[in-house]
Amino acid sequence: MTSMPSPAVAYVRVRAHTLALIEGLTAEDCQIQSMPDASPVKWHLAHTTWFFETFVLAAAWPEYLPVDPAYRALFNSYYVGIGARAPRAERGLMSRPTLAEVLAYRTEIDARISAGFRARCLNATQVATLELGCHHEQQHQELILTDLKHHLSRNPLYPAYRAQPELTASGDAALEWIGFEAGVRDIGHGRTTRFSFDNETPRHRVFAEAFELASRLVSNADYQRFIDDGGYQRPELWLSDGWDAVQAGGWQAPLYWFDDGSHYTLAGRIAQVADAPVCHVSYYEAEAYARWAAARLPTEAEWEIAASGSTPLRQMQDCCWQWTASAYLPYPGFQPAAGAVGEYNGKFMINQMVLRGGSCATPAGHLRPTYRNFFPPSARWQFSGIRLARSRR
Amino acid sequence: MTSMPSPAVAYVRVRAHTLALIEGLTAEDCQIQSMPDASPVKWHLAHTTWFFETFVLAAAWPEYLPVDPAYRALFNSYYVGIGARAPRAERGLMSRPTLAEVLAYRTEIDARISAGFRARCLNATQVATLELGCHHEQQHQELILTDLKHHLSRNPLYPAYRAQPELTASGDAALEWIGFEAGVRDIGHGRTTRFSFDNETPRHRVFAEAFELASRLVSNADYQRFIDDGGYQRPELWLSDGWDAVQAGGWQAPLYWFDDGSHYTLAGRIAQVADAPVCHVSYYEAEAYARWAAARLPTEAEWEIAASGSTPLRQMQDCCWQWTASAYLPYPGFQPAAGAVGEYNGKFMINQMVLRGGSCATPAGHLRPTYRNFFPPSARWQFSGIRLARSRR
Amino acid sequence: MTSMPSPAVAYVRVRAHTLALIEGLTAEDCQIQSMPDASPVKWHLAHTTWFFETFVLAAAWPEYLPVDPAYRALFNSYYVGIGARAPRAERGLMSRPTLAEVLAYRTEIDARISAGFRARCLNATQVATLELGCHHEQQHQELILTDLKHHLSRNPLYPAYRAQPELTASGDAALEWIGFEAGVRDIGHGRTTRFSFDNETPRHRVFAEAFELASRLVSNADYQRFIDDGGYQRPELWLSDGWDAVQAGGWQAPLYWFDDGSHYTLAGRIAQVADAPVCHVSYYEAEAYARWAAARLPTEAEWEIAASGSTPLRQMQDCCWQWTASAYLPYPGFQPAAGAVGEYNGKFMINQMVLRGGSCATPAGHLRPTYRNFFPPSARWQFSGIRLARSRR
Amino acid sequence: MTSMPSPAVAYVRVRAHTLALIEGLTAEDCQIQSMPDASPVKWHLAHTTWFFETFVLAAAWPEYLPVDPAYRALFNSYYVGIGARAPRAERGLMSRPTLAEVLAYRTEIDARISAGFRARCLNATQVATLELGCHHEQQHQELILTDLKHHLSRNPLYPAYRAQPELTASGDAALEWIGFEAGVRDIGHGRTTRFSFDNETPRHRVFAEAFELASRLVSNADYQRFIDDGGYQRPELWLSDGWDAVQAGGWQAPLYWFDDGSHYTLAGRIAQVADAPVCHVSYYEAEAYARWAAARLPTEAEWEIAASGSTPLRQMQDCCWQWTASAYLPYPGFQPAAGAVGEYNGKFMINQMVLRGGSCATPAGHLRPTYRNFFPPSARWQFSGIRLARSRR
Repeated sequence: MTSMPSPAVAYVRVRAHTLALIEGLTAEDCQIQSMPDASPVKWHLAHTTWFFETFVLAAAWPEYLPVDPAYRALFNSYYVGIGARAPRAERGLMSRPTLAEVLAYRTEIDARISAGFRARCLNATQVATLELGCHHEQQHQELILTDLKHHLSRNPLYPAYRAQPELTASGDAALEWIGFEAGVRDIGHGRTTRFSFDNETPRHRVFAEAFELASRLVSNADYQRFIDDGGYQRPELWLSDGWDAVQAGGWQAPLYWFDDGSHYTLAGRIAQVADAPVCHVSYYEAEAYARWAAARLPTEAEWEIAASGSTPLRQMQDCCWQWTASAYLPYPGFQPAAGAVGEYNGKFMINQMVLRGGSCATPAGHLRPTYRNFFPPSARWQFSGIRLARSRR
Repeated sequence: MTSMPSPAVAYVRVRAHTLALIEGLTAEDCQIQSMPDASPVKWHLAHTTWFFETFVLAAAWPEYLPVDPAYRALFNSYYVGIGARAPRAERGLMSRPTLAEVLAYRTEIDARISAGFRARCLNATQVATLELGCHHEQQHQELILTDLKHHLSRNPLYPAYRAQPELTASGDAALEWIGFEAGVRDIGHGRTTRFSFDNETPRHRVFAEAFELASRLVSNADYQRFIDDGGYQRPELWLSDGWDAVQAGGWQAPLYWFDDGSHYTLAGRIAQVADAPVCHVSYYEAEAYARWAAARLPTEAEWEIAASGSTPLRQMQDCCWQWTASAYLPYPGFQPAAGAVGEYNGKFMINQMVLRGGSCATPAGHLRPTYRNFFPPSARWQFSGIRLARSRR
Repeated sequence: MTSMPSPAVAYVRVRAHTLALIEGLTAEDCQIQSMPDASPVKWHLAHTTWFFETFVLAAAWPEYLPVDPAYRALFNSYYVGIGARAPRAERGLMSRPTLAEVLAYRTEIDARISAGFRARCLNATQVATLELGCHHEQQHQELILTDLKHHLSRNPLYPAYRAQPELTASGDAALEWIGFEAGVRDIGHGRTTRFSFDNETPRHRVFAEAFELASRLVSNADYQRFIDDGGYQRPELWLSDGWDAVQAGGWQAPLYWFDDGSHYTLAGRIAQVADAPVCHVSYYEAEAYARWAAARLPTEAEWEIAASGSTPLRQMQDCCWQWTASAYLPYPGFQPAAGAVGEYNGKFMINQMVLRGGSCATPAGHLRPTYRNFFPPSARWQFSGIRLARSRR
Repeated sequence: MTSMPSPAVAYVRVRAHTLALIEGLTAEDCQIQSMPDASPVKWHLAHTTWFFETFVLAAAWPEYLPVDPAYRALFNSYYVGIGARAPRAERGLMSRPTLAEVLAYRTEIDARISAGFRARCLNATQVATLELGCHHEQQHQELILTDLKHHLSRNPLYPAYRAQPELTASGDAALEWIGFEAGVRDIGHGRTTRFSFDNETPRHRVFAEAFELASRLVSNADYQRFIDDGGYQRPELWLSDGWDAVQAGGWQAPLYWFDDGSHYTLAGRIAQVADAPVCHVSYYEAEAYARWAAARLPTEAEWEIAASGSTPLRQMQDCCWQWTASAYLPYPGFQPAAGAVGEYNGKFMINQMVLRGGSCATPAGHLRPTYRNFFPPSARWQFSGIRLARSRR
């Protein structure tokens, strides 16, 4: 990333990548919301566009004429500072505007942004918000894939989205333990010229005891041993809420696994690869697996220290997100951005656990070692896996 | 209906009418399931076709090669005798097969049925089941409209399906009471050469005390007086379960009514017409209104006696279905058809009330005075209204 | 009942019988509400007393001084005409007033009623309402037993309430079919000098086709054959809602049955008696059993015709209530009583099925052939069984 | 606590204090479970006794003869290592064993423990577990009061448990900010000879930035200003899940507050004291209040540093527990105890927030500065209040 693209170029690239993701999808594929936590692809296409219109264009220009005034509420996700919102669980109920209309909305906003650059009328705040909007859209690029995967997995026909497989095998490398000394360390993002989300800031000091991190992720074969050892039948391995989730959900394996050794992927229902990282596990499963393996999950500080260290670890960003033992809470001194855009991260800092790393579904250029992803401990539809840690003996 | 069309002609007409109904709808419009009780338009298109394939073609010919073996479970509504079924509440989750594929399925089955007629290889049972399938498809034609109306009404844009209004005004005719004498009467369908559903049979004797029926339906203006008189705030007017439904649902008016005097219709959100029949009320609301009006709802026997009598009543079949005071239960001597098709009606004979008449959404030629429609007492998304009755003084 | 007791004597007897029922119960036994449909014994003791205070004493005398003004809302069951009510599902949350205080309330009201008789100041309406209150209390006497049975059955210790068994064996009499001719019959209560509830009136004409009724109830051994034949695994035997209830509730046998051939009774957990009537089945189970047995359930008119006929049938009133095929709806010309007491029956006339007969838990002298009991089709905690019917061949 | 009582004496004192708490309560008062999160007083009496029988007596002596073998499952709270358990939400359904029987169970176990001391046959592990059992019973002493308060508050009569008020007024001391320097600090319990729960260990290093803590708790008058300023109507002040809880629960004030300025207390429904600490707020309310007040909640490390410092702060342990900004998670190097007793704390380390301090309901001698209490962020029935913190400027 030595030669950082200009904001105008970055915008065009990000927007084009989103369109590339939906190539081959029908209007119906883009319409469906398979559970309240997921959103329709069409909604992602519209909402990311809405973000630019609302926070870059409308916020700065008092006389701005919206593409369609109804969209302001229709595609508002959760910004109460912006006003009314369509209920989250009903995003799949809107057949209108159609996919074609949403794509036209994208084209129109792209033209306006582009004209803004050409006219050189975008101020520094607008450009900064536009950069945020690009990273925002990249997050939705990943969600498009995870939400689509969930929706297609509920179809008894198990249709494939793409031909290429999701995760590459690890080559079954032996799991090694990489050690780190105790001490006061800096973590978090320093908010230099490079972009970060507000939840990564401020950079601050933490004390970490000596620890070790696994050189690779837990594999399907590893996890199968946990299952074979009665992992899903032994309450003593689980957190109390985790065991309740196992019972209530009838969990017997990670999400998308079938009894016959196959699993559902974006390439359809195919055989599992034994030495690929296990994926689509909840925090509860990750935590229970770690206990069974006489290890534990890393804290997010430990993960970041390791990711910033000199010893390279495998599968840090390209396979699946890694559940940490850290609750998603504000860093000391955290200040959300002013205005409605300040709702981006801060108001979700409860009842969620931090995931670190990145996944096969994360777009290139989106990640940093300080990146904080977060989901409730029961969530399984993200590309979430397990990296073990242990305290230094 | 003096010149009854041949089964082959009737089939073609019914199938064409379904396609006419979806003219102008996008793939997305046809995809959405806005509540578990409703189904996507696409599903209706496929399921009605499945009915012909399963019960006319596959049931008769042991070597029948299905269009797609997966469809047998995919588009089975509730026939346990046929085997597996996709869960009802998840009909909206199937983006595949696409609308285009479902339309191709329709075309293929139409071709096979047509070839069967041409080859003269359909036996009498098949032709009878095909007639049943045509009436079945007509029922789904009405459901396409009621389900679509519900789905479009949940869209904050309130899109219109068609330009023409739903119900014509009544011209505010005065409400008159038409009297009928007490006595033993025959009701039900005699299963002559004309078609009926099994739940209309057998024709049997009932004793009816003297009664009177209102000459027209309750109008919007009538119903508004009930609202203005505190109808939705006075528990003494309601059945206990009805009052619970009012509280739980926050009901203040019929479904689709807005505070500003407008209501949602298939022609969009438009002003109410005062002397049009009130529509989209539950049994609970109909029953409470009748109590408030010092009247009651008719039994289904009373309705049928009146409909078969010599005095014509207004708005019997062309405006909205009329809740009766009769629970949906088998007639004395009722026998469901043999085999899986016997599940058509009988197994729903509990927890529902009978509606009589017909609605503006019912296709022409579908109705009979003996016709029994049925819905749970809380249902409001059908075109359901109120005709008053009272016992003869 | 040739020598009808005076109202004063009847009152004393009914009240004493209630106290006899709770002999040996602790304050804790009388406190518990094991499900929203059931009520604590203490609540039954208080509410029946409240009925007399509210409808006999307070309703007639404007200057009446209540025992405790708070009781008016506290022990109001569902009479919205009386005012506020404690939520039904929270009847078990009131430790105060204590059982001792409730018994003192009973004693005080008994003294006031008794003094009213002595003073000869009760008018005819009051005496009539007092008679209604006695029948009301008798209904609660049965509910005390069924609610207590449910509560004790949830205790892993399965404590016994009384030593004597609930139902006597039938002696395994052969099931015979008793025939009845078709014709117009009178059913319902004529409201002569004898008491009836308003829902039994008016006496009116019905037409009944020829039918036959089983001479005895379905026995445990009969029902076991249904279970052994896969009754709970075969959806084709069930109403659709019934099958849903089987799945949702995990039903495999009547309520209170255990896998080992024992069942919970008010005498504790004991072995079933094969030729005793099967009990604690829902309408769904009764209806499915009848279908399996190539019979059906009787309508309430058929049951009443048979009960009023000259041929005696066995087990009509002393074993368990018998589900009928009739929905609980008003008789033609039904008029509820004026005022709040009119809420007694009428507002529950939806979503319930009629049971006829009586049970081992019904107090002596409470029953009539015209008596209409009613519960939702899923209810199983009443003493409810099965009598078969069939249409005359 | 310089002269620590012997284990035998400590046991007798703790057990006697529990009995003192229930003085004046009826069997009914002790029976009720007013919500799944709370337990009946009788259950607390039995379960604390069960703890001694199971973990001190039965665990050590293979031939131990239990008081009643059924109690092992009946009074097991959540120890899956011990075996079956009665469902938590049904603790209120057991009228048997009666209160008298449970008190006899207590007496019998007390006699056995006492005899064990006299016989000098208790080994060191047993004595250590007995000490744990005493602290366990002290925790339940607080729960007896909070659960009883919830249950009595649901009674429309608002009965009083005791005459004395719960919280003394603060004298309206001005709120001062006490400062603390940044640095690496030790927190947690060192597991010396003094008792601690396992979740307080091990003692370990943390880095804390400079911070300030409020000298007193937030008072009712302070909190009233938040309410008056629209606190419960302004989503921008709340975490997203917190706002959902406000909407779903209809929260307008702390639990137990009434519109008229009164609140429910263990001394009945009485007027609020303006300068007493606000109590019965959830984490969500505490966090929203802090945001409104331009402050934040302290982390648990900050709280412990302050509590261990030389500057005394007011209302640290005697008024109400103080929500911290820390999720309840294991300390670095945390190891639960071996065996079933290891389930005591560890398995609840998810979805809960830490509270520090102590309350007016905590028994004397139970607290330490390292003490970690924990509840879900929505919990309000504990004596939970607010101490503000802020980062050093």
